[in-house]
Amino acid sequence: MNYKMVGFVLGRIFWIEAGLMLCPMLCAMLYGEGDVVQAFLGPALALWALGALLGWRAPQNTAIYARDGLAIVALAWVLMSVFGAFPFVLAGEIPSFVDAFFEIVSGFTTTGSTILTDIESISYGLLFWRSFSHWVGGMGVLVFAMAVLPMTDGRAMHLMRAEVPGPTVGKISSKLRDSAKILYEIYFVLTVAEVVLLCAGGMPLFDALVHSFGTAGTGGFSNKALSVGAYQNPYFEVVIAVFMLLFGVNFNLYYFLLLRHFREAFRSEELRVYLGIVAFATLTITVNIVRLYGSVGTALRTAFFQVASIITTTGYATVDFNLWPNYARTVLVLLMFVGACAGSTAGGLKVSRIVIFLKAARQDLNRMLHSHAVTTVRFEGKPLDEKTLRGVHNYFNLYMLLFAVSVLLVSIDGFDLVTTFTAVATCFNNVGPGMELVGPTGSFAGFSAPVKLLLSFDMLAGRLELYPMLALFSRRVWRARHSAANP
Amino acid sequence: MNYKMVGFVLGRIFWIEAGLMLCPMLCAMLYGEGDVVQAFLGPALALWALGALLGWRAPQNTAIYARDGLAIVALAWVLMSVFGAFPFVLAGEIPSFVDAFFEIVSGFTTTGSTILTDIESISYGLLFWRSFSHWVGGMGVLVFAMAVLPMTDGRAMHLMRAEVPGPTVGKISSKLRDSAKILYEIYFVLTVAEVVLLCAGGMPLFDALVHSFGTAGTGGFSNKALSVGAYQNPYFEVVIAVFMLLFGVNFNLYYFLLLRHFREAFRSEELRVYLGIVAFATLTITVNIVRLYGSVGTALRTAFFQVASIITTTGYATVDFNLWPNYARTVLVLLMFVGACAGSTAGGLKVSRIVIFLKAARQDLNRMLHSHAVTTVRFEGKPLDEKTLRGVHNYFNLYMLLFAVSVLLVSIDGFDLVTTFTAVATCFNNVGPGMELVGPTGSFAGFSAPVKLLLSFDMLAGRLELYPMLALFSRRVWRARHSAANP
Repeated sequence: MNYKMVGFVLGRIFWIEAGLMLCPMLCAMLYGEGDVVQAFLGPALALWALGALLGWRAPQNTAIYARDGLAIVALAWVLMSVFGAFPFVLAGEIPSFVDAFFEIVSGFTTTGSTILTDIESISYGLLFWRSFSHWVGGMGVLVFAMAVLPMTDGRAMHLMRAEVPGPTVGKISSKLRDSAKILYEIYFVLTVAEVVLLCAGGMPLFDALVHSFGTAGTGGFSNKALSVGAYQNPYFEVVIAVFMLLFGVNFNLYYFLLLRHFREAFRSEELRVYLGIVAFATLTITVNIVRLYGSVGTALRTAFFQVASIITTTGYATVDFNLWPNYARTVLVLLMFVGACAGSTAGGLKVSRIVIFLKAARQDLNRMLHSHAVTTVRFEGKPLDEKTLRGVHNYFNLYMLLFAVSVLLVSIDGFDLVTTFTAVATCFNNVGPGMELVGPTGSFAGFSAPVKLLLSFDMLAGRLELYPMLALFSRRVWRARHSAANP
Repeated sequence: MNYKMVGFVLGRIFWIEAGLMLCPMLCAMLYGEGDVVQAFLGPALALWALGALLGWRAPQNTAIYARDGLAIVALAWVLMSVFGAFPFVLAGEIPSFVDAFFEIVSGFTTTGSTILTDIESISYGLLFWRSFSHWVGGMGVLVFAMAVLPMTDGRAMHLMRAEVPGPTVGKISSKLRDSAKILYEIYFVLTVAEVVLLCAGGMPLFDALVHSFGTAGTGGFSNKALSVGAYQNPYFEVVIAVFMLLFGVNFNLYYFLLLRHFREAFRSEELRVYLGIVAFATLTITVNIVRLYGSVGTALRTAFFQVASIITTTGYATVDFNLWPNYARTVLVLLMFVGACAGSTAGGLKVSRIVIFLKAARQDLNRMLHSHAVTTVRFEGKPLDEKTLRGVHNYFNLYMLLFAVSVLLVSIDGFDLVTTFTAVATCFNNVGPGMELVGPTGSFAGFSAPVKLLLSFDMLAGRLELYPMLALFSRRVWRARHSAANP
């Protein structure tokens, strides 16, 4: 590993985080929360100083190899979370560091699982930080860094590939730096649009910001104990549901729209399957729950909101879906694994991987039945090469293995099987709430500290799509390398 | 499809089943159950007549292609189950045909799930038939047919590959027919050994036969409501646990032992991982449950029995493990998916597939981290070719897809998530009992008829390793083909 370059990139990330902390500090100041401002001051100064120390000057050798890219991304996310946890502890609002770490990892990874049992007692400054971390983590910190850091394309690609979700990374501009800028611009505009629409409906600005951050990053932190259900307002429900779905779409499609390539955007196979799943799940759940809500309209709206929330791995709720009949609950648990589109801010396996799975499985069956059949798997109109296909298979393998090991370890805490299984599912897929004790009205407070750390690892592994976090465990990644000629 | 040849093979299978029915008839006669003998008479005669009609003379064109092999095996198993269900209905002991079909599919597929709520009220003849079907299904009906049918190796191989579990089929003899005979001889000798040991400990012959059939086929049907727990005898517990483990070993290893190739047998990677998992699961569960059983010895024996029972997908129980703490329950649920060794009578994914997964995942990670690393996945000392690796991946894909769809459909019946999830897991992996309502003391009686049929499909798909059952849904398989020159 090129330690100097790693230090340089991490230094810049620290600077960025120090800058980001100014936002919750400003918020706390506006609400007159002097002690919260102070709680941010120390971590922000420490980040700034470390950033200056590590990132002052670019090293001579700026080579980054694939494995360095993975390790940098993982380290950046872990360290950002460590620093990001301190304000909660220093303000005394989450006394345990492990709890605070879990909470901010849940924020940055856009999971939205919480250890808080009384959300409405938390200060504005920290509520803002918690939700703002969703917004930052949604599009990715390194993608942001790329938009502002001088870096050649080849090297930055290793970082981008490690941070942007999905089986393949499509560059939307010939220059990666431009791509990163365009992505952040789209992200910013969509977020502002949601804030405006929510405020127009009468939601207070603070609440509108919190819920727009949570929607944009597909995170799910709310400032209300009852989540979006607290507003009892169908207008907010529909606006947030639609925006959740919008943020679950591959951002490249918005770029196509900007370029007026409408046909290209709407021809997307992944988009159509994604919307198809949402429609199917919404309709069948509506039938399943209609007797609970009296009218078909209410049932449909309620089903649509929770389906949009879970498939995009946001995790907002307007009702306690833990109390729904079992077909509806099962659909929601399965949707947690599906996730939304690649290249969006959502977690889960991603619709594109599921589509590729199904096609590979059908092709495999055809091969068994007709030894002479020569078929290629096509996705988005293009034939898939063996390497991508193999990548998707291996990803799924690793995913299931990590999932099984996590369930085994979490079960040591002794909670019931549904709590254990859905706690891992919801963290690993960056959803937020699970079922039973970790349902929409529950919290993760009851787990032991080691399990909270394990679930934090799962959230990071889920958000960064496994490989970066696993790279941290490879001895070869940590081996120092000084010359670019010795990869 | 070569319909004449399919008919011929099915005809012979029907003859074999008619012959097999003589055993429970004899049993019923010995116990003076005249009505049960009569209930078998009709189906046995029908099978014999159909067998004569279809299988009298081999057709001129005996060509069997891979897809025909898959379809024949699937058809044979479905039709054998249809005929095998009738005695239960005709004797009036299971009035519903769907229930009877579920029960006998559970028998032939060596699952051991039951819809009976009062097992001890069933007649000896039908209890015998139910358990005998485990023994027949364990090694495979077509493997048996192969030992007695005249068929060339190339053609028979398609049948053998479709019926014998595991990612690859090892021929232990240069002639397939000899292989089949040897396998059945080993199977027979091991079963007799268990019967003798159980009788030696004082178990009545009938009970010893029932439990030996259940152990040999890794099925799990008992004639006692409390399963093996009814005997309260540590000797029986240990004998059955050891034999369950023995029947979970790849039978090729026993052949190596017969040939005195001891080193080859004990060097098996799959065997060592299998025993390693059993040891790990037994020890950690012992720690988890020791306070329930007072003494370490009892806890160890109890843990060992249930672990052996679940990993081999047998499904016998000496205690209601549904009441165990959650770590132990989670381990058991995970073991359901693991299964025992390929080439044994067990269900599940098989240890060899799990090992290949883990190795492929590690190799993939290495590739991500070191682009220059050239590594091959080695299993049992030999490098695995891409085709096998791809086969394992695709198998896992299809397996998870079918699993998810089944859970979704079963959830419509509205039982709790654990019941729904473990009902599918236990049927699909041919284990027998699940958790909660389908736990060791429960039954599948509460499910609706469509769900029972779906679970029957899952049991067959699990036993035959997916492809044969899926082949039944391919239009191309059903297309008639008359000339061997037009594959």
